[in-house]
Amino acid sequence: MKPIRVTLRLQASRRCFSSTPTRREIRDINELPARIHPSYIETRHNDLLSLQWPSPPRNILLTKKDKSPHVTASLLEYAQHIQSTYPGVNILLERHTAEEVHTSLPFPIYTGSPSLFQAKVDLVSTLGGDGTILHASSLFATTRRVPPVLSFSMGTLGFLGEWKFKEYKRAFREVYMSGASDAYSSTHGEAPTSLSSSGDQGGAEKATTTGWSSLRGKSMGSSRGARVLLRNRLKISLHDPSGSRLSSASSTKSLTPPALDANNSEPHPQEFSPETDLYAMNELLLHRGSSPHLTHITISISGRPLTTAIADGMIVSTPTGSTAYSLSSGGSIVHPLVSSLLLTPVCPRSLSFRPLVLPANTAVSLRLEEGTRGGRVELSVDGVRRPEGVGVGMEVRVCGEEIRGRGRRSVGSDGEEEEWGTGGVPSVVRAAVGGGEDEDHWVGGLNGLLKFNYPFGEEEGV
Amino acid sequence: MKPIRVTLRLQASRRCFSSTPTRREIRDINELPARIHPSYIETRHNDLLSLQWPSPPRNILLTKKDKSPHVTASLLEYAQHIQSTYPGVNILLERHTAEEVHTSLPFPIYTGSPSLFQAKVDLVSTLGGDGTILHASSLFATTRRVPPVLSFSMGTLGFLGEWKFKEYKRAFREVYMSGASDAYSSTHGEAPTSLSSSGDQGGAEKATTTGWSSLRGKSMGSSRGARVLLRNRLKISLHDPSGSRLSSASSTKSLTPPALDANNSEPHPQEFSPETDLYAMNELLLHRGSSPHLTHITISISGRPLTTAIADGMIVSTPTGSTAYSLSSGGSIVHPLVSSLLLTPVCPRSLSFRPLVLPANTAVSLRLEEGTRGGRVELSVDGVRRPEGVGVGMEVRVCGEEIRGRGRRSVGSDGEEEEWGTGGVPSVVRAAVGGGEDEDHWVGGLNGLLKFNYPFGEEEGV
Amino acid sequence: MKPIRVTLRLQASRRCFSSTPTRREIRDINELPARIHPSYIETRHNDLLSLQWPSPPRNILLTKKDKSPHVTASLLEYAQHIQSTYPGVNILLERHTAEEVHTSLPFPIYTGSPSLFQAKVDLVSTLGGDGTILHASSLFATTRRVPPVLSFSMGTLGFLGEWKFKEYKRAFREVYMSGASDAYSSTHGEAPTSLSSSGDQGGAEKATTTGWSSLRGKSMGSSRGARVLLRNRLKISLHDPSGSRLSSASSTKSLTPPALDANNSEPHPQEFSPETDLYAMNELLLHRGSSPHLTHITISISGRPLTTAIADGMIVSTPTGSTAYSLSSGGSIVHPLVSSLLLTPVCPRSLSFRPLVLPANTAVSLRLEEGTRGGRVELSVDGVRRPEGVGVGMEVRVCGEEIRGRGRRSVGSDGEEEEWGTGGVPSVVRAAVGGGEDEDHWVGGLNGLLKFNYPFGEEEGV
Amino acid sequence: MKPIRVTLRLQASRRCFSSTPTRREIRDINELPARIHPSYIETRHNDLLSLQWPSPPRNILLTKKDKSPHVTASLLEYAQHIQSTYPGVNILLERHTAEEVHTSLPFPIYTGSPSLFQAKVDLVSTLGGDGTILHASSLFATTRRVPPVLSFSMGTLGFLGEWKFKEYKRAFREVYMSGASDAYSSTHGEAPTSLSSSGDQGGAEKATTTGWSSLRGKSMGSSRGARVLLRNRLKISLHDPSGSRLSSASSTKSLTPPALDANNSEPHPQEFSPETDLYAMNELLLHRGSSPHLTHITISISGRPLTTAIADGMIVSTPTGSTAYSLSSGGSIVHPLVSSLLLTPVCPRSLSFRPLVLPANTAVSLRLEEGTRGGRVELSVDGVRRPEGVGVGMEVRVCGEEIRGRGRRSVGSDGEEEEWGTGGVPSVVRAAVGGGEDEDHWVGGLNGLLKFNYPFGEEEGV
Ligand SMILES: NC(=O)C1=CN([C@@H]2O[C@H](COP(=O)(O)OP(=O)(O)OC[C@H]3O[C@@H](n4cnc5c(N)ncnc54)[C@H](O)[C@@H]3O)[C@@H](O)[C@H]2O)C=CC1
Ligand SMILES: NC(=O)C1=CN([C@@H]2O[C@H](COP(=O)(O)OP(=O)(O)OC[C@H]3O[C@@H](n4cnc5c(N)ncnc54)[C@H](O)[C@@H]3O)[C@@H](O)[C@H]2O)C=CC1
Ligand SMILES: NC(=O)C1=CN([C@@H]2O[C@H](COP(=O)(O)OP(=O)(O)OC[C@H]3O[C@@H](n4cnc5c(N)ncnc54)[C@H](O)[C@@H]3O)[C@@H](O)[C@H]2O)C=CC1
Ligand SMILES: NC(=O)C1=CN([C@@H]2O[C@H](COP(=O)(O)OP(=O)(O)OC[C@H]3O[C@@H](n4cnc5c(N)ncnc54)[C@H](O)[C@@H]3O)[C@@H](O)[C@H]2O)C=CC1
Repeated sequence: MKPIRVTLRLQASRRCFSSTPTRREIRDINELPARIHPSYIETRHNDLLSLQWPSPPRNILLTKKDKSPHVTASLLEYAQHIQSTYPGVNILLERHTAEEVHTSLPFPIYTGSPSLFQAKVDLVSTLGGDGTILHASSLFATTRRVPPVLSFSMGTLGFLGEWKFKEYKRAFREVYMSGASDAYSSTHGEAPTSLSSSGDQGGAEKATTTGWSSLRGKSMGSSRGARVLLRNRLKISLHDPSGSRLSSASSTKSLTPPALDANNSEPHPQEFSPETDLYAMNELLLHRGSSPHLTHITISISGRPLTTAIADGMIVSTPTGSTAYSLSSGGSIVHPLVSSLLLTPVCPRSLSFRPLVLPANTAVSLRLEEGTRGGRVELSVDGVRRPEGVGVGMEVRVCGEEIRGRGRRSVGSDGEEEEWGTGGVPSVVRAAVGGGEDEDHWVGGLNGLLKFNYPFGEEEGV
Repeated sequence: MKPIRVTLRLQASRRCFSSTPTRREIRDINELPARIHPSYIETRHNDLLSLQWPSPPRNILLTKKDKSPHVTASLLEYAQHIQSTYPGVNILLERHTAEEVHTSLPFPIYTGSPSLFQAKVDLVSTLGGDGTILHASSLFATTRRVPPVLSFSMGTLGFLGEWKFKEYKRAFREVYMSGASDAYSSTHGEAPTSLSSSGDQGGAEKATTTGWSSLRGKSMGSSRGARVLLRNRLKISLHDPSGSRLSSASSTKSLTPPALDANNSEPHPQEFSPETDLYAMNELLLHRGSSPHLTHITISISGRPLTTAIADGMIVSTPTGSTAYSLSSGGSIVHPLVSSLLLTPVCPRSLSFRPLVLPANTAVSLRLEEGTRGGRVELSVDGVRRPEGVGVGMEVRVCGEEIRGRGRRSVGSDGEEEEWGTGGVPSVVRAAVGGGEDEDHWVGGLNGLLKFNYPFGEEEGV
Repeated sequence: MKPIRVTLRLQASRRCFSSTPTRREIRDINELPARIHPSYIETRHNDLLSLQWPSPPRNILLTKKDKSPHVTASLLEYAQHIQSTYPGVNILLERHTAEEVHTSLPFPIYTGSPSLFQAKVDLVSTLGGDGTILHASSLFATTRRVPPVLSFSMGTLGFLGEWKFKEYKRAFREVYMSGASDAYSSTHGEAPTSLSSSGDQGGAEKATTTGWSSLRGKSMGSSRGARVLLRNRLKISLHDPSGSRLSSASSTKSLTPPALDANNSEPHPQEFSPETDLYAMNELLLHRGSSPHLTHITISISGRPLTTAIADGMIVSTPTGSTAYSLSSGGSIVHPLVSSLLLTPVCPRSLSFRPLVLPANTAVSLRLEEGTRGGRVELSVDGVRRPEGVGVGMEVRVCGEEIRGRGRRSVGSDGEEEEWGTGGVPSVVRAAVGGGEDEDHWVGGLNGLLKFNYPFGEEEGV
Repeated sequence: MKPIRVTLRLQASRRCFSSTPTRREIRDINELPARIHPSYIETRHNDLLSLQWPSPPRNILLTKKDKSPHVTASLLEYAQHIQSTYPGVNILLERHTAEEVHTSLPFPIYTGSPSLFQAKVDLVSTLGGDGTILHASSLFATTRRVPPVLSFSMGTLGFLGEWKFKEYKRAFREVYMSGASDAYSSTHGEAPTSLSSSGDQGGAEKATTTGWSSLRGKSMGSSRGARVLLRNRLKISLHDPSGSRLSSASSTKSLTPPALDANNSEPHPQEFSPETDLYAMNELLLHRGSSPHLTHITISISGRPLTTAIADGMIVSTPTGSTAYSLSSGGSIVHPLVSSLLLTPVCPRSLSFRPLVLPANTAVSLRLEEGTRGGRVELSVDGVRRPEGVGVGMEVRVCGEEIRGRGRRSVGSDGEEEEWGTGGVPSVVRAAVGGGEDEDHWVGGLNGLLKFNYPFGEEEGV
């Protein structure tokens, strides 16, 4: 039924825009203008940040849950709404999604290698569950500057998702306009001029004459700017026994087939490499995986050995991940704003390994010990197995990522500017109009989703 | 150093027995006399059973930890002691061990397919750790009547092992003589006559004229009989969605290489089959294994659905296994004499899955649900992965094995006799001379091995 | 509204029975005939027992939750139904209940000291929650033979209660008639003759000529006999440092006011005494109580020291109690048919005190150590604090009670007869007509009451 | 034996100082000069702060564990060392300690009401265990500016204590000199002039002409300055159902005897009052205490109801307290530098109350609900019961205390100055000479004291 309705709507759209077949093309990501970096301003009574665009976002990456016709239909509806309402905006899709949907859309879409996303994407919007958000985050797993993420939950609500799909119009507007009035005032009422780079072509050209001015009446003022929860990530690197950084390629190419991304059939573009760290939103996991034998993992904290765990595995988690795998392994629930790392063992052969919560800037190292029968364990980041695995003597180094310039506007120097507002996954959360009590999605999630302290015997009264 | 001492002793032995090269042969298990079944008598002030041989045991299976020269040397020493002190006794070894050691032994040894063990083995004696005991138990994983097991721990003490190797002379004597005086009195002082079957040849023939009579002076009386802790096992079967029993072969031959036994390189002889159940000493485990995704397992109790667990996996454990994997997963510690099953989830995605302890005779079923991404999970029995795995819709049925005739002597009827003393792994435990307080190996293991309630700050005083 | 309806009904009743003021009297428990002991027969496909009365029960003790007008109204309705339908039956109430309700009942009721209950009560029926059942059980805390207990939950369902109040007619009949056909057949069709003692007067006299014969048409046959779950209790005694048993009186009279029973304002009749053990249905608890300091408790198992716990307290629980306090303290959930004891620490100052499950016949001793600042801790049995408390050096000894003759009919000897069917709290459970799968109240309670493995995110679909 | 040695030493001391009886007096705290506030400077590679005195500390409060002759002897030794080596320093004692020891000291000591301590004490030094530190902290439970605390563990090491008593000379010097070179440089080489107030007399007068100059050769330079771990506290207030703050007096004077401090027999001077908050170093506990019944506590987070817990009690803990009561109740271990609050239930009647870790600035409220039978529960702060208790409808509000100006030197304005360096308990920790890996007392404590992940079977090898 749904697909039918969508098809009808699409036909209508085609007529409106008198779309021609040539417009249903897939364009190259390189044609898009350069990325616009927003800033995140501290707000007074609140630990959330306020999103501020210097000029309207133009390149929107949409990602979606796979193999769900219902979600695909929603994506089409959403993309068309954006395209028709915000004419300067370009829609960017992952390649497999682009191929799946482009014939159903009456305008060109963009795609390209995920490794180019970090240079182009102003805003990510996800349609799916927590897995889709984790996947979107993984597309920026090697950059310190993740674009803001606006997530819609489809069907079963996830813990990380904030918005219901039916709110998509309001939500997108809130994000798109965020900081608009500030920008106006800072430019003395002038509409921002074109910010597009010279390579700016195709669908992007519309942006040159619009900015927010064409949507001015729709501005919501800075007080209604989008609220952002900056979710800290882990910074992970892999080292051989001599301490040298390992790349994915050298260590395992021959051992295992390349890890397939959980959500599509392309190999994951971001892997460990000698040059870059890998960032995780939920957790790093070492696990015996398919080996029936216990792993022996020596944990060091700031270079000092803490203990050797004999266990199924070991989790280093963010507070965000505290409600994911770490929860199942017995970890405490940690609010995402507690700047910390969790160290939670998986099935430790010990009565006395209590989960630990460490300062976010702690350098944690996990080294695989000789005692590990089988000699190799699995390494997963945010639920995706890395082909590398970890061999005896190898070491995984983990640290909470540094958040620089949080809440502070840059003061001019170029060096500062570069680092300004980096770190974390800026997640757009639903902020109540009046602010205050209603806006804690996290508490709502504990009760509604995790069934936290679910009362005994309740339904008996019914 | 140890090997040298052993070699010297062996040379001495060779002289004593004037062994000839022909004696250093490996004989076939089929040449051994039929198995002798002991009975287990309840004792008054104690929950342990008293082992009673109707006539002296003759076929002793020795198993050992692999790849440890120290353990191999001990095995040689032990085998020679038995051979020289108890001339009617035949030494049976697993094939790979037989091949490894036969040239170092001045007498013939027996070997054969593990599937024949249950028809021949009177007594098993293990040298190694818990893994060696589990392996020995697995050799009898398809029979209801496991021979008594006498275990020596080598180096790192295990939780299941009772005896230190240096006690081997006393321990073996205690088991060998157990019930001797009773047997004599019941046969009016006569030495038991030959019980060997017609096929009895080779080393076995010595038994025909001895019984306990030659060792009479060494009898310790029934009051000093070996004490046995009957460790209940799980009875496991695998079923397809229609409820039919699955054999190992049909279900998976093509999918995975045959499971290699943890302790040797022979494929495991006992697998699921349409005819036989499989018995486990520690636990049955369903686990996501190498899949990164959560399993969905519906648990039924006595045919009634209890819950669908979304988890890394699920453990059904014996009380013996309560200090193994179940412990690591958060299960309670259950004394081996509590007739029960443990249901312990592994990393459940739930705040409210508390481990359960059920009556031993509960029929527990675990069915893999559609929701399981990947569609197949791993199945392990006592730490050994079964090649079958479990696919969506398949069901594992588990029940505590029935212990029949525990402690009750049969009263004559043949039918009764057949079932008499079946069920469980009869584990020979160390019984203090005066009985009483000292004999609880289990409490000792909690403190000494598991560091149960290990006091805070203790060593600070030192 | 309810009270009004009840009042109307009572007026109607009075008319029917032409009740006179003299009938609304409270009679003495000593006037009741002697108690009738049922037997409990093992059933084939089931671990529940079948209740068998040798002749119809006559003395029914009704207990109820206090301070609930709604429950009081139900009690009146229930009592009148019994009185009018089963004329040989006498209603016995606790004194404070008798005083509260006797003017509302058109027939005489009986009351007396709780210490006489065990000599008179054939059947207990409770109206309330788990607390009411625990209280009823406490009225038999010094006898080994607890009458069968038929429990109706009122309002919030409890975990121990089986029946909803609206089922009271069917439930009472089922219990009352249980074993009737057996009894008939065993007496060759004869109606059982009067079993009333000489002191039998008042309401009781009607029973003399009836038995089940007057209700014959209503018999349900033995196959429909009431099902009984025998809940094992703990046997508890208190000892001074020399090992002598302590009575309540000597140890504490002067220290604290007498413990008030949870459910009424009479002092608890059953206390520790040099002669008798005290039985508990849920648990024994030692706890720091009002002291802010940690307790030091040495736990011995079968006379052998296990460990010294430094904790808020220590629980020794029955399987029945495993869903009560022990659950809150992190203990596993143990099915009531697992013959065992649980040892669960309360807030232990240790990372490695895992809850233990021990065989029911284990002798557990808890001794308060010198280290306990304050020198005295609280002792509670089934949630009721005992005035004694426990001082340094004192010891509480606990063991699972022995169940004798479970399921076996006595074979004639008088000594046997006396012990026949003793031990445990015989709890009448709801048995499905066809038996089998539906009847496991326990599994139902896990899901419906304890929200066992309550699924994440469920209500989001709503 | 120890006391004897001490006595000898004291006699020697008396001779050295030619002490006269008049010097063995107890002087009034008001005679002491005003308190000197140090600052705490952030250090580069480290999360610890560097202690900086503007001028040498003069008023040292010594607290000790009670009822331990060994600790008293150490206190005498320590006090004499300070007095003889640092002549400008005055020794301040709690009244009961002053009375106990003054005759054994050859110089005057000071004492007075604890309410005056916060105006006078430059530095606290404790001799005892964690309880003594908690007690010392409680003496500053109503002020935001706790003096630095230098703790020596006596006998059984505590988790909060850093130093062994045998290190007292080095430790005290390190603290005393901390910041000396900085101070010199900031005053261009001049010795600081007298800072003593006019009331400065007796032992204090020596300070007037010294400063650090007399000890200059002993300066260790600022790089060797004392390292401080700022332990965040909880800020607690008590409110009646209308939201008004409650004082201790009004609410409970008549109900219970005044709470006696754990460590001495004086009533605690710091209680809840309408004006002041109460600070806790470990935790706030609401607990059923002597009531046998479950408490019903509604928890709100930032004004939004989270859940109603039905439990023995509820803990709101600091990270410091995460290894105290919260640990026993199943909470995670949280590093003291993680800015957070822990919410850990005590024996919750729920399967799904997982401990929570919240941002330190979260406003947590606990309100006692009607459902609580008994109607009143106990309230403890850092293990000391408050006489108030909490009645139905009353609310306890808790928040992590704000740390202002951490690591930032004040920039001149008086208002700033006042708040400069406030918040937390500045705990002097042992810093390794070279800094770096060795200095993490916390990791050492996990292993050495809490036996974190204590390995199985270790001692078996011995
Ligand atoms: N035993 C367990 O609890 C396991 C958990 N996981 C978790 O799943 C994550 C990967 O997610 P998917 O790719 O969707 O795998 P998936 O499809 O197996 O789903 C994992 C579940 O975790 C939930 N989830 C993910 N992140 C969460 C968070 N931060 N807070 C609360 N719930 C969260 C999802 O909603 C989903 O219900 C991993 O990062 C890991 O944390 C993965 C394997 C086992
Ligand atoms: N995370 C965990 O705790 C894991 C536990 N296992 C356990 O290991 C068993 C297989 O043992 P191995 O082949 O030796 O594997 P292994 O060499 O990996 O050793 C498992 C460890 O468990 C100990 N163990 C085994 N059975 C025990 C028992 N009943 N009570 C106390 N400790 C026991 C052994 O002494 C050894 O230390 C499995 O049955 C399973 O229970 C297996 C994998 C993971
Ligand atoms: N923190 C806790 O969990 C505490 C538990 N209790 C339990 O309460 C019992 C006394 O009950 P009441 O007098 O009614 O006190 P209560 O009115 O304080 O209620 C205790 C709660 O425990 C439930 N309960 C009692 N026995 C149970 C069982 N065997 N299985 C499952 N739930 C059970 C009751 O339904 C009630 O909800 C004690 O025997 C003790 O087990 C008592 C105090 C604290
Ligand atoms: N069941 C439990 O675990 C209980 C714990 N406590 C704790 O005791 C504290 C009061 O201490 P005391 O007056 O000495 O009472 P206490 O003499 O009863 O000792 C409590 C124990 O806790 C230790 N401790 C205190 N604070 C600690 C910390 N922050 N980290 C690690 N260990 C710590 C002490 O060393 C001592 O071993 C309370 O704040 C509370 O946290 C109090 C009562 C019960």
